[in-house]
Order: sequence, then C-alpha cells, then structure tokens
Amino acid sequence: MSTRPVLSADDFKVADLGLAEFGRKEIRLAEHEMPGLMAVRKEFAAAQPLAGARIMGSLHMTIQTAVLIETLVELGADVRWVSCNIFSTQDHAAAAVVVGPEGTVDEPRGVPVFAWKGETLEEYWWCTETALRWPAASGFAGPNMILDDGGDATMLVHKGTEYEKAGAVPSVDSTDNEELKVVLALLQRSLAEDSTRWTTIGREIKGVTEETTTGVHRLYEMFRNGSLLFPAINVNDSVTKSKFDNKYGCRHSVIDGLNRATDVLIGGKVAVVCGYGDVGKGCADALRGQGARVIVTEIDPICALQAAMDGFQVTTLEDVVDIADIFVTTTGNFMIITAEHMAKMKHQAIVSNIGHFDNEIDMAGLARTPGIQKINIKPQVDEWVFPDGHSIIVLAEGRLMNLGCATGHPSFVMSNSFTNQVIAQIELFTKTAEYPLGVYTLPKHLDEKVARLHLDALGVKLTKLTKEQAEYIGVDVEGPYKSDHYRY
Amino acid sequence: MSTRPVLSADDFKVADLGLAEFGRKEIRLAEHEMPGLMAVRKEFAAAQPLAGARIMGSLHMTIQTAVLIETLVELGADVRWVSCNIFSTQDHAAAAVVVGPEGTVDEPRGVPVFAWKGETLEEYWWCTETALRWPAASGFAGPNMILDDGGDATMLVHKGTEYEKAGAVPSVDSTDNEELKVVLALLQRSLAEDSTRWTTIGREIKGVTEETTTGVHRLYEMFRNGSLLFPAINVNDSVTKSKFDNKYGCRHSVIDGLNRATDVLIGGKVAVVCGYGDVGKGCADALRGQGARVIVTEIDPICALQAAMDGFQVTTLEDVVDIADIFVTTTGNFMIITAEHMAKMKHQAIVSNIGHFDNEIDMAGLARTPGIQKINIKPQVDEWVFPDGHSIIVLAEGRLMNLGCATGHPSFVMSNSFTNQVIAQIELFTKTAEYPLGVYTLPKHLDEKVARLHLDALGVKLTKLTKEQAEYIGVDVEGPYKSDHYRY
Amino acid sequence: MSTRPVLSADDFKVADLGLAEFGRKEIRLAEHEMPGLMAVRKEFAAAQPLAGARIMGSLHMTIQTAVLIETLVELGADVRWVSCNIFSTQDHAAAAVVVGPEGTVDEPRGVPVFAWKGETLEEYWWCTETALRWPAASGFAGPNMILDDGGDATMLVHKGTEYEKAGAVPSVDSTDNEELKVVLALLQRSLAEDSTRWTTIGREIKGVTEETTTGVHRLYEMFRNGSLLFPAINVNDSVTKSKFDNKYGCRHSVIDGLNRATDVLIGGKVAVVCGYGDVGKGCADALRGQGARVIVTEIDPICALQAAMDGFQVTTLEDVVDIADIFVTTTGNFMIITAEHMAKMKHQAIVSNIGHFDNEIDMAGLARTPGIQKINIKPQVDEWVFPDGHSIIVLAEGRLMNLGCATGHPSFVMSNSFTNQVIAQIELFTKTAEYPLGVYTLPKHLDEKVARLHLDALGVKLTKLTKEQAEYIGVDVEGPYKSDHYRY
Amino acid sequence: MSTRPVLSADDFKVADLGLAEFGRKEIRLAEHEMPGLMAVRKEFAAAQPLAGARIMGSLHMTIQTAVLIETLVELGADVRWVSCNIFSTQDHAAAAVVVGPEGTVDEPRGVPVFAWKGETLEEYWWCTETALRWPAASGFAGPNMILDDGGDATMLVHKGTEYEKAGAVPSVDSTDNEELKVVLALLQRSLAEDSTRWTTIGREIKGVTEETTTGVHRLYEMFRNGSLLFPAINVNDSVTKSKFDNKYGCRHSVIDGLNRATDVLIGGKVAVVCGYGDVGKGCADALRGQGARVIVTEIDPICALQAAMDGFQVTTLEDVVDIADIFVTTTGNFMIITAEHMAKMKHQAIVSNIGHFDNEIDMAGLARTPGIQKINIKPQVDEWVFPDGHSIIVLAEGRLMNLGCATGHPSFVMSNSFTNQVIAQIELFTKTAEYPLGVYTLPKHLDEKVARLHLDALGVKLTKLTKEQAEYIGVDVEGPYKSDHYRY
Repeated sequence: MSTRPVLSADDFKVADLGLAEFGRKEIRLAEHEMPGLMAVRKEFAAAQPLAGARIMGSLHMTIQTAVLIETLVELGADVRWVSCNIFSTQDHAAAAVVVGPEGTVDEPRGVPVFAWKGETLEEYWWCTETALRWPAASGFAGPNMILDDGGDATMLVHKGTEYEKAGAVPSVDSTDNEELKVVLALLQRSLAEDSTRWTTIGREIKGVTEETTTGVHRLYEMFRNGSLLFPAINVNDSVTKSKFDNKYGCRHSVIDGLNRATDVLIGGKVAVVCGYGDVGKGCADALRGQGARVIVTEIDPICALQAAMDGFQVTTLEDVVDIADIFVTTTGNFMIITAEHMAKMKHQAIVSNIGHFDNEIDMAGLARTPGIQKINIKPQVDEWVFPDGHSIIVLAEGRLMNLGCATGHPSFVMSNSFTNQVIAQIELFTKTAEYPLGVYTLPKHLDEKVARLHLDALGVKLTKLTKEQAEYIGVDVEGPYKSDHYRY
Repeated sequence: MSTRPVLSADDFKVADLGLAEFGRKEIRLAEHEMPGLMAVRKEFAAAQPLAGARIMGSLHMTIQTAVLIETLVELGADVRWVSCNIFSTQDHAAAAVVVGPEGTVDEPRGVPVFAWKGETLEEYWWCTETALRWPAASGFAGPNMILDDGGDATMLVHKGTEYEKAGAVPSVDSTDNEELKVVLALLQRSLAEDSTRWTTIGREIKGVTEETTTGVHRLYEMFRNGSLLFPAINVNDSVTKSKFDNKYGCRHSVIDGLNRATDVLIGGKVAVVCGYGDVGKGCADALRGQGARVIVTEIDPICALQAAMDGFQVTTLEDVVDIADIFVTTTGNFMIITAEHMAKMKHQAIVSNIGHFDNEIDMAGLARTPGIQKINIKPQVDEWVFPDGHSIIVLAEGRLMNLGCATGHPSFVMSNSFTNQVIAQIELFTKTAEYPLGVYTLPKHLDEKVARLHLDALGVKLTKLTKEQAEYIGVDVEGPYKSDHYRY
Repeated sequence: MSTRPVLSADDFKVADLGLAEFGRKEIRLAEHEMPGLMAVRKEFAAAQPLAGARIMGSLHMTIQTAVLIETLVELGADVRWVSCNIFSTQDHAAAAVVVGPEGTVDEPRGVPVFAWKGETLEEYWWCTETALRWPAASGFAGPNMILDDGGDATMLVHKGTEYEKAGAVPSVDSTDNEELKVVLALLQRSLAEDSTRWTTIGREIKGVTEETTTGVHRLYEMFRNGSLLFPAINVNDSVTKSKFDNKYGCRHSVIDGLNRATDVLIGGKVAVVCGYGDVGKGCADALRGQGARVIVTEIDPICALQAAMDGFQVTTLEDVVDIADIFVTTTGNFMIITAEHMAKMKHQAIVSNIGHFDNEIDMAGLARTPGIQKINIKPQVDEWVFPDGHSIIVLAEGRLMNLGCATGHPSFVMSNSFTNQVIAQIELFTKTAEYPLGVYTLPKHLDEKVARLHLDALGVKLTKLTKEQAEYIGVDVEGPYKSDHYRY
Repeated sequence: MSTRPVLSADDFKVADLGLAEFGRKEIRLAEHEMPGLMAVRKEFAAAQPLAGARIMGSLHMTIQTAVLIETLVELGADVRWVSCNIFSTQDHAAAAVVVGPEGTVDEPRGVPVFAWKGETLEEYWWCTETALRWPAASGFAGPNMILDDGGDATMLVHKGTEYEKAGAVPSVDSTDNEELKVVLALLQRSLAEDSTRWTTIGREIKGVTEETTTGVHRLYEMFRNGSLLFPAINVNDSVTKSKFDNKYGCRHSVIDGLNRATDVLIGGKVAVVCGYGDVGKGCADALRGQGARVIVTEIDPICALQAAMDGFQVTTLEDVVDIADIFVTTTGNFMIITAEHMAKMKHQAIVSNIGHFDNEIDMAGLARTPGIQKINIKPQVDEWVFPDGHSIIVLAEGRLMNLGCATGHPSFVMSNSFTNQVIAQIELFTKTAEYPLGVYTLPKHLDEKVARLHLDALGVKLTKLTKEQAEYIGVDVEGPYKSDHYRY
C-alpha cells in the first residue's frame, strides 16, 4: 500500500506543492464565510474542551470540512479523517489539511487525512479502517469520538464488533451487494490480524455525532434493536442544520450544479422537482428564481398542499415526463425516475439527483436499456442516446449533482451544520454522564446559539425581549424561545 | 333576557330577512371553498359519529364558522354557539345559521347562536354562559363537548368549578381587570341561582378541542398545575392548521386588511414586519409580493437567520421606525410597538397588528400621549395626530387588522383548520378511552388526511409510493410519511 | 335640469354633509400619497401658469381626481368636471370637490362637478355637454383646454363640429349602437338650440391632454385622417404613466378587486391572465405573489416569450378553461372570454376584466345563453348559473373589476399619471407655438421630472452623474438619460 | 507570424484533436438550445439568401457563435471570423469551427477563425486585419458584409479609409491610449503595404449588423457626423435582443459567474447592483431569487422609481459601501466603483462588473493604492489586500464577470440575439436598395418572428387573433401587434 497517494502525516507525501498552497488560500477565504466555527474557536480557545478527545471523522473532505477539522484541533482534539464518499474529496483541501495552517509541504504539521478524489471501494474502506486505528505510538487502539456522515465509520465498528462476538465474519459470497463484499473481506482480514480489534476500539468510544438523515435513521434503528454501542447525537435534526443545509444549501447548489454541467438557460424551461421536503423546497424556489416554470411531484399530502399553496403545479411524473426540460430528484427514496420515464423524455432533457443516492434515478435500468449509447460530454456529464435517436443528459451519473457537478453546499451553510457538529462533540465528550446510551438531538438553546453565531456576519440586528415580555410568553430572556415541537 | 336562541340581547328576531338570505347565499359559495368540511360530511353521513354529542362552540361567528357548525349538525351533533370576540360576528352569518339550510326566517330550523357584532363585555359573557347551559326541556345541564377558540368557554367552566368548590367567588373589587370583573359578577349571579351549576356542567364534558395558541397555552398550564377538568385536543398545532392558517391565511388577509382600510399603494413602500414566525413569514411574503421593501424584527436567532436567508433586512424597530411606511406586528407578545415608537414615525405611517391582542401595539399608551388627537376616518381606521402635527393611521384600534378591516382568513384556509376541529371532535367524542386527561395533538395520519381532503379542489395529483419504496423508507404506503418531529 | 354646478340631475344640493366631510378627510390623506401633484403645486404657486386656462375635465371623479382638480385650480385654472364612466364616480369625492378645501356645504367654494355614481347614458352625455359649456356670465362659450380620459369630451366637440359643418346630425335610427343614439339625439337638440355652438367651442380650444390608450388611439386616427381640430398630448405613453399605472397600479388593484368581491383564497388557485402587456405583467406578478399558479395567454410572440421567461405557462384559453379558478382579462381587445368558454369553466370559477371595456368578456353572449340564471350575490358580484347546475362568478358585470369591486388604482400611482397631466396641460397652454396641430408625447426630461418628484416619498436616494461620466455616455448631468426608444 | 497558434483554415493547425472534438460535441448540444438559428437554417435552406455574401464577423468566438457561423454558412455565405475580445475565445469552439461539421482535424472543412484565448493587443488587431482581408486566390480584397460586436472591425475599416484619404496615419506618439497606439502602428504598416487597401475594402461593403449598445452608439455618431461608409442595422435594439440578452441572459449568468468564482452563499448576503437598466433588472431579480437582499443605485429617476416599485432599496453607493457583501456594476458607464469605495468595503467583499468595460470598476486606481497587495486565488479571481489588512475579491480583473468567470450568456438567449443577426444580414444583403446609408433597427414583424421561432422549444402555445379582433385593434392578424414605441 506504500505507493498509493495516501494523504497522512505518517507516511505521507504532499507531492503537489501548488495543490496544498491553493488549498490553504481557499481555507483562509472559507474561514470568513464560516463565522460559527470561528466564533467557537474564539469562545473555547482557553478552555480547550476537546483536550483528550481523539476524533475520527468520516465526512466529505472539502475546504469547508478543513475548517471544521482545524476547529476541532484548535479546541484540543487529536483528529484523523476520511471522506465518506469515493468522489467527494477535494484533493487541494486534503493536502492543505495535512500541511496544516502552520506547516509546510516538507514539514507537514496538520492532520492525517486518508482520502483522495476517485477512490475504489477497496481503497475507501481501507481508508476508513486506517483512520479508525490510532498510531501504535500513541498507545491508543482507536478514537474516543466519531464524527460521522452517513454512518459508515460507525457501521464498521458495529459490524466488526458484531462479527467478533459472533466469532466469524460471514462469507463474501453471502451477499450480492458489491460494497458489502468489500466490507466483509476487510473485516475478515482485520480480525485475522487482531481478533479483539473491534471490541477494543468500540469500548473506548464515548459517542458519535451524525450529520445526515440516512445515518440518523441507522442509529435510531440500532438503538431500537438494542445493538447501539455508544450514545449518539443527531446533528441532522437541529433546525440550523436540516432547515438550512437542506433548504438554503440546495437553493444555492442546485443552480450551480445545473450551470456548471450544462450551461443551459434555466429561464423559460419546465423543471420538475420530485419531492417537496426541505431540499425540494429549496430547489423549487431557486429554479423559480431563475425563471423556470416549476412542477412538483409529491407523495405526502401535506407537502403537496404546501407546494400548491406556494404556487406550484403538483402532479405525477407520468403526466409531465414528456414536456419537462429539467428533472431534479430530492426525495431520499429510490426508483423515482425510472428507465421508462427517461425513455419518454424530451430530446436533451436534463436528469439529475440532489436528494440521496444514485438510485433515485434508475441508472442501472437506464444502462440496461437495449441499444442505448452513452456519450461522455465532459466529466460528470453524460448524454444517453436512445435507439430512436433522442437523448437525455444525466448529471453526475445520478449521484448528488451539487457535489458532482459543482462544489456542494457553500461555506456559510456548512458553517451552520459544522458548528452543530463541534458543539455536539463538546456535549458528548464533556457531559458524558448526561447522555446515557441513546440518540439525542441538541437542546434548543444550543440550536439557537448556532444561529446566533451567524447573525453578525449578515448584519442582522436581533431585538431583545424585555423581562416583562419574556414573562408574558413564559420564556427566559435569553431563550430558548420556542417549544420543542415548533416547526419554524 | 331571553331563554331562547338569540341573535340580540333583546328577544330573538331574525328581523332582517335580507340579512339571513344574504348569509345563506354566502354560505353556499363558501361551501365550495371548504372541500375538507364537505368531504367529511359525505364520509360520515351514514355513520353519524356525533349523534349524541352536545357541542358548545365559542369561535368567531363568521360565514366559514357557519359551514363548520352545519357540518357538526350533519354528523349528528346538537350545537349551541357564541362568538369568541365581541366584534367578530358577521350578523348575516349568525342569522343564516339560526335560520338553517332548510328553515325560513319565520320558521328557523337552524342552531341557536348567541352572538352579534359589537357586544358589550357583559353581553359577551352572558352569551357564553347561555350557550353553555342546555335548554331545560332537553334534560341536560350543558354540553358534553366544547369547541373553543382562545379558551373563554373552557375558562368559564373551570373558574365556575373552582369557585364553586372554594365556596365563594372573589369580590369584583379584587381585580383591576375590567373583563375579569365582568366574569366574577356573572359567576356570583350564576352560582347564586344554582350553587352546583358548574360542577354539574363540567362533569358531563368529555373534552374540548382548542383552536389557538393562546388557548392551547392555557390548557397546557392547567394540565401542568393539575386543574384541567377534561381532556383536550390541541388543534392549533396540526400542521394543516398552524402552518396553513397562520402562514397562508395571513399572506392573504394582511394585504386585504391594508387595502380595505387605507387604499394605499403597497408597492415601493417600506414595511416592517415584527416577528418572523408563521404569521410573520406569511405577511413578509405577501408584502414583498406586492412590491414593498420588507424589514423584519425578531428576537429568536433561528427565525432571524431564516428571515435573512429569505432576503429580508433584519434589524431592530428603533433603527427603522422613522423610515417605514407600514408596520405589522405578528408576535403574540405585547408592547411591540410602543407609544414612543409611534411618536417617531413618518407622517401617515400605517400601524397594524395581525398577531394577537391589541396590546401588541401600545394603544393605551398612545391614548395617554399628552395632546394627542384621534380622528376617525372610517370604521376601524383612525388617524392619531400628535401635537407636532404629524399623524399615524392605526387600523382596527390595534386589534387583529385582518378581522377588523377585512373578513379574516378566507374559506379555504379555514376549511383546513375546521376539518381538524371536526376530526378532533369525533376523536374525543368517540374514542374517549384513548384520550385520558391530558392535552393531545391529532395523530399525523389525521393531519395528512386533512391535507388530502383539500388536494382535489386545487387540481393536485398525488404520487403514490410503491410497496418497495414505502419499505425502503420504512413507512406505510398510506402514510403517515414523516416522523413526529418533522418540521415541514 | 339645472344650469348650476350639479352633483345630481336634480337641482344641486350637496345634501349629505357627512359625504362631503368624509370626502375632504380622504382628500387630505390622499394628498400625502400624491407627492408629485403636491410638489407641482409648490413649484408653480407663484407663477400661476394656468391662470387664464379654462379646463374641462372628463375623468373618473374619484378622490385622486379631486387632488388633481384642486392642483389645477391652485395653478390658476378655471375648471369644470365630469366623470368618464357612468359608474366610476365616488360621490363623496364629487361632493368634497364641489365644497372645496375652503368652502362649506352651505357655501360651496369648489369646482362644478357634473357626476354621480350610476348615471344613465342620457345623464352621462348631458353632464359632458354641460361641463363643456361655460356659464353665460363668464362670457365664454366653453373651455380652452380639455383634460380627457377615453376621449369622450374630445369626441363630442369633434362630432358636433362635423355635423354642424355638414349641416345635419344623422338620424338616431342610422345606428344600432345604443350610446351613439344618445349622442346623436343630444347633438340634434344641442344644435337646434344653437347652430354654431360646437364650432364656437372648438375654436377656442388650445389642446387636449389624453389619459388612455383608447383615447390616444382615436387621436392618432383623427390626426391621420385630417379631422383633428387641436393639438393633443398623449399622456398615456409617458413612461411614468403607462409603465406605472398599468403595471404597478394593476398589481395592486387586481388583488384588491378579487378580495373585496369574493374573499376567495388566491393561494393555490389556478389563475389565467389573458394578455401579458403591462397590465397583464402587473396582474400575473401580483397573483403569483399571493401564491396562485398563473397561466398566461398571448397573441404577441414577444410578450409570450417574456411570459415564458418570467416562469409562466403560456397556452391558449381553450386548453385550460376547465381547470382554472380565476380569470382576468387584460387585453384591450374584445371577445377574449366567450360565452362558450364560460360554459366550460369549473363550478364557481371567477371571471373578471381589468383591461378595457366590458366586451373583453362576452357578457351579451352570456346573458343570451339559453336557460342561464343570474343571481346577484352583492353589488358588482353576480353568480351566473348554467342549466347544468354549475355556475360562474362574474365581477363588475364584466367592466373594470378594480374600479367596480375595489377603488381603482391607489393614489401614489395616480400621482404619477396626474402629474403628467398637469405638466402636459401647462405645456400645451403656455407653449402653444411649440405644439402645432399633432399628437405629442411629453419630452423625456419631463417624464423624468415626474419620476423625480416621487422619489423622496419612497426614501429613494438618487446617484448623481459626475460631469465626466455624463460626457462619457453623452448625456447632460441633469438628464434626459436615455434615448427616446429606450424601453425601460 | 507563422509560429503563433492562428486558427485559420489557411495556414492552420488544429493541434489538439480532443479540443476540436469536444467543441463539436458542445456545438451539437447547443444547436438544440438555439431553435431560432436552426429554424432559420431550415426556412432558407433552399433559397440560399446569403449566397455571394462574404461575411467578416467580429464577435466572441464561443460555442454559441459557432452555431451562428455555421448558420451563415448554411445559408450560402463565405465567412471569416475573429473574437471581439482578447479573452473571450473558447479555444474548443474555435477549433471545432475550423474543423467544421463535416471535416476532420486533418482535413478541416470549416471556416477560418483568427482567435485564441488570451491574445495580446497586437495579436488581436492582427487577427482583425487578417479576417478583413480575403485570400488572394478569391479575387476579392475583403468582405461585402460585416457582422460586428462593439464595432472594432467597422472602426478599423473607417480609420483606415480616413487616414488613407488624409494621406497619413497619425504618429503612435500622438496618443496615450495603449490600444490606439497598436491600431495606428498596424494601419501605418498596412497602408505602407498597400496604399489603397482600406478604400478598396470599404467600397465593397454593403453593410454592417451591430450587436451592442457601444457599437451602435459609435454608428449613430458616425452617421450624424457624416463619416459612415455603409448602412448599418442596429441589432442591439431589437426587443428580442436587448430585452432578452440583457435581462434574461444576465439573470442567468450573474449567478453563474459569482458561483464559479467564489462559491460564496448568495442567500442572506447584501448585494448592491449599480444600475437598474435591463442588465441591472436581470441581476437584481436573480440575486433576490437566490435569497440576497438587493440594494440598487441609479442615476435615472425613472429607473430608480422602477427599482423602488419592484421592492428594492435604492440609495447611493456611499451609503452602503461598508455593509454590502457583493457588488455588481451594470451601468455601461465608468468609475462606478472607485478605489476609495473599495478601500471602505467589508473584508472579503466581492466586486464585479457585468455591464461594460473594466473601467466600471476603477481597476487602475485600485492598483495604484499605496501598499496594496494582489493575491491571485485562481484564474479570474484576485484578492486585493489593503494595508490595513482587510481585503476584497475582484472578479475577472474588473472585466465582464459572466464571460470571465463563467461562460457568458447561455445558448437560448444567444439564439435570440443571433437570429436577429442572421435576419439582419439577410435584410441588408438582399434588400440593399431598401437600406440607403443610415442606421436602422429591424422592422417589428421581424422582431416578432425571432420571438416566434423560440416559442415551440419552450412549449408555448400562442393564441391567434380572430379577423374581427385584429380589426378591432387595428392590426393585421399576423402582426406586427404593437406600435414602434411600445416598451414591452
């Protein structure tokens, strides 16, 4: 494994000087757009609440994540990192994090990062395993905290522990799932090396903070079925995460993804947004803001009624599949746009997904269409030509188009999400007793704090309740201001 | 005073033939705009789930409420009604309800309504008491269900019970609150007539369904302090109520109120919206939609950040009080706009409240301003001239401007709220065992049902999950589709 | 009939003290919203440029027109007024103008107004004739200036002159047009009284300033065919008139008209706007701002493309006539919505016109539909029930719904239009030599001046060109800033 | 000159196979987005109206321009091309045009293109001269038609002719203007080679069609001062050009430019748009659509009033220079944002120009600021650090940011502009007699035709006037539908 371009401070080489320098420049600019993280650095500079924390992070290795990582380090943590997606690493960000704010390429003083753009599945899971194992010299087996996005790191520890206890890892042949085969092979090898590795690692972990709906879903399930090994904080459902990242982040990045991929005028086009949750709301708003006529599809009658009240036509995909120019799926479900749908679309219709995995669009079914031809136009943009001669343009091979074709959510949005992450890490690490085994959301006053840390940067002046007003509505002058079930 | 159904404090006469006929015409038109209520009538026509229910309702006696009342009657209920506000009765609606869909003015066959526009406080509470007492001939003391808006009917039963148990009603002199004096005097008289009246009435009541934030707040408080006498359903916090009534209802009616009151061009004006909750969101959106430049004030950092993300300037009232043309308070708090603020406003600035009580704007303080002069322009529109000669225009004397200056929320919005009410009445009345003493919100599948009943009218076509898709996200094909903490 | 200034066809009485007083209050409030007119009063207070002008005005007699009239008077003019529509007079405005700012009801010191709400056609034309004839005591036959809206006053003078010269008025039987019959009868009587009346009147007139597209159309036609008697200024095509009145005025008043007439929630509804000129643009924008889904119909490919680019569906009425809830015609053409269209509409669809005459909607055809029944709901709102039981709601009998159901354009918009009128009157009256027979638009610097006079009221701060910048783009520092064909 | 990478079919080498192939793929996709041009190809395929036309084009050599060029060729023209800007060539577009739709890299069969990204001024003008001279073998000196953008090609012919007639080219020392020096040197050399070159070329030219405001401005000036050598069609002022390209094009590309350059979240930011002409209107709309709070600066009171009516704050740059996050100039004037302004901005404020030349922002003054430091972040993005430590981000060195940081206007918008160009070329070339020396705009029916050719692609269904309706408003059923001064 010594020849692969591992970006770690251990055996590492940041070969490309320019890459790391470009990364450091972009990190500096991003810091300004991430006022929440910078405020947290300042607030806890003296207290060092994460001193003693060994954090393993698995989250898209971008410039914004670099600012998150360095915030954790500034609060005292010892950090190792991987990306949670084989394509999402920005190599200049990874290089810059390894170099660190005070290091040089020759003398990197940053954080070990095991991630590069375009990993194979084997490489991906090797990275995850490696980041979960602490250097022998440290005297520790692994992290005492996990910061997760999608739950892969958490899953590896749980699977390892499960098989270790069961005494055997299932055969690779027991599954058809390509990725699961890779995980099983890794765990076989890993447990062959050290038969108590995963229980040892799991035992030290105080908790995990999870970024996404998908990951949170897994955590609740594990808690319900009794397999959860350590407490978890559901960062995803902080208002300042889910409402901001999903809605305002996608409002920005859906346009960016379409533009960079296709340069097609959005104005005047018919755009179908599948799903009117927070992501769908952001996308529909953005597309309308660029002059598209937006049509929404929904399964939930409440969200459907919201879409209608917001002035959108709401109908089924079948009804409009042949008149729309742009399709964006935002559902978090699968088989939303099928191969049959795509066969009926207008010539050069644009098909993209911003919701979830690449199975929202039936890419597998599309590829199986008899006689279909795939022409790569440029990276992340493919024209699929049907036998009848008409074609469609698929972005990012059906994966998240805002990550694949643009640069994902902008820094300011991620500052909200990541400030929740840092605060959640501090909560779990420093108040262990208050969080027995379970899955928690951050208390509302911390959610409000995250928002508060982002107001100055936007020039927002907050009004202050008088003591009498606070009493009148039965809250504290300093908040929290709303009941837990308030919907915003 | 009368012992018969009344529309006036005098003996009952639906004197005005035209009034009742006009009311019946408007009810007919409104039915078309209230598809949820009409669907519920159809669904339960045979089952008659409210047969045996004696419902006392206290809720603005408008055309929309007339459709609600007649829906309850169609499902089998025996109903008596009052308005929950001294000004909010539409007399033609009241007259039409008394006449009933199949009655005539000479032979009314409708529902007893004790409400007219412009009641005194004494009349208001007399109406409430009267509606809570069932006709002697019926053999019942009072209702077995309450449908409340703001909690006045519920409060009277609770206060009566409390004083009855305590053995005495406090002296009228024990309070400075004008309205409380009236209530105390009524209860003294009432308990003098029948010393067990209120325990008798309270004992028969199976539950209350409450419409508003304010009423819900009181219910939770009574439950917490152990004084709640019967279970309650919080209708206010159904998504199809709070998110629709507050946001989409006010988006409509704030414009209507301003236009009918002032005829002032909204385009190009600077409008300050105090508060960015659901009501504030609706108002800000509507005012921008009419071309105003909208500025928001907020105390909650999360809502403030939402306002900024939605493109609004967010600052304090002090900063912009002298440049704005239109002010709308939406907070549910008090002393939002003070007399001092008003003294500093531009000449002919428009000041209005759509949030709550008339104390959002300090009307009392305004009236006490030395040398101030009040010129009535037309009903519900007053010009207040300051000694320096500049004046402001106050709508509806600081009370809800959409009710005072326009006709409140439109039928379609109220159809959502009221369908929740009817379903909540059915739940509490027919499933008493499932609702022990406590305050409940409707289960999500019923909330979704309310939405579903309103889709056809808007031409919305819902997409249906496949069985595989439902399993993939772990829900039932028929819903509910979201977790309880989902924010919409 | 009276020879004195009248408000009614009977002898003049401003009988209703309250009416006049209410009118004066509203005029006072409106003055604040008409900063252009007030600025013009101030600018020309000393110069009195209209001293000697005898202005006959024919323009909707509303509160805003009252401020216009009193501005003309303040600049020195002798004024007589009629409404240009039999329904558009606000009686309290008319009463207040007759009383005048310094008069009383007993001692009116204002301007003769010959207009009341609900004139017959005979009364309407009698008013026009009467206002065109100056009191005998004055020594003048008629006005020396006309301020016209729609061209009726101008037309009467031209027709009178034409028939006078021809030696005979055509027989009433020569036409089927009801209104033309009335005009012919009047001219027969009038010329019988005085055979040189109209040439005498016409000869003294220096010019006319015309408010509307329709009136301007007639003027260009008369100029082309050589029959125009005096020069005209086309006020309609000032940018600050057509772009503001049509677009921003209707954006405001279309919502107001719908709300007052129907109280139907606009949010979530499908609204069809016929025509995407300035009026259509304003209506579509407003309806979308209230949450409607807006569909546009157009005949002009350029406007159609604009509508598409602005995100609206553009299709034919036939395609959507059975799915829309609200129809608004804005075309200035006729037979846009036919009786056949209306027969196919959804139950309780709302049909209205904000564009032009009542023939945009085929009201005559509707009334001829076999078996149709018309139920008046309230003034200006009729339900038309088709034999199959479904009905539609027609506003203002197909006439302008913003005038019929609401109060027309708000003051601020009219201030722009009317400041153009005043400036045009001054131009034509004081610079007669510069305007030989022809039809003119105001020079751009005056158009810009009108805009400039409205900026302060909105808190707009204008940037000033440096001398170098002005030279760079080849304009004067003080403007005009654009070429004549610039489209804004 | 033989070593420079000239892209011409003469001495040309398309070295990069991939570049040309990528260009051909993008051209194919763009053709679908340029329905106007494709429709024109079809309509005139048989007639070949440009047979005999020798067109020299000077217009940004992009993918869209490639579709324009190949349309001209399909209609029979002999074409030579240059870019009108040293940075705007997309090399893959140039390569693909040279190769042509039916050629190969080894055997190019396309059009000679003299353009590459990043020319020096000397190279730029050499390209222009070379494209203006026809190959000796052809027997022609130069083109008989010019298609110009900004007027550089037209200017070179006029200057050459002027100096030829004057008998001498002014000395290079006679001017401080760097670019003019280059032009003078070229003309000295050129006339030294052939003393009648430019009169010969000019004499053969039937006319020019000009794309931009700036170029049109020069043409009107030359016509006024008598120096214009051939008739010109002002394509810029077609409605389907100026209203679409400026407004809808910039609505799209301003967002794209900001995103690609900075990845900064636009939502919640304060954005200042300098100028509210069509470009400013598009930018303000787009920025609001992405959730920014937009503030407008204006010098023209009419446009300022429009901005206010559209809900924007309108004030001076000085008032908000220190609170805004994003600046976009759209004025077509110079020194809009000065070095002093930039010194006062917030840290990391983004400064960009989408209006005109790089002098809208005082780049020269910025560079002269004592102690300032320029850090290049990435191509077209520079951070300028002031001595006090705060910095600003300048896009595209102050040049057009949508071209520099993104890919300019999208194909669909350019299809409108370029269809006007093709139609104008056909008009001038085939109806020479109808266009004597002068500057013309296209007749309205052709403007409407351009719009019409773009409707199908957007699914727009046009309504057709009946004969009666057409007569009623005095137009032909087939149009044109509006008067020449109609503003849209």
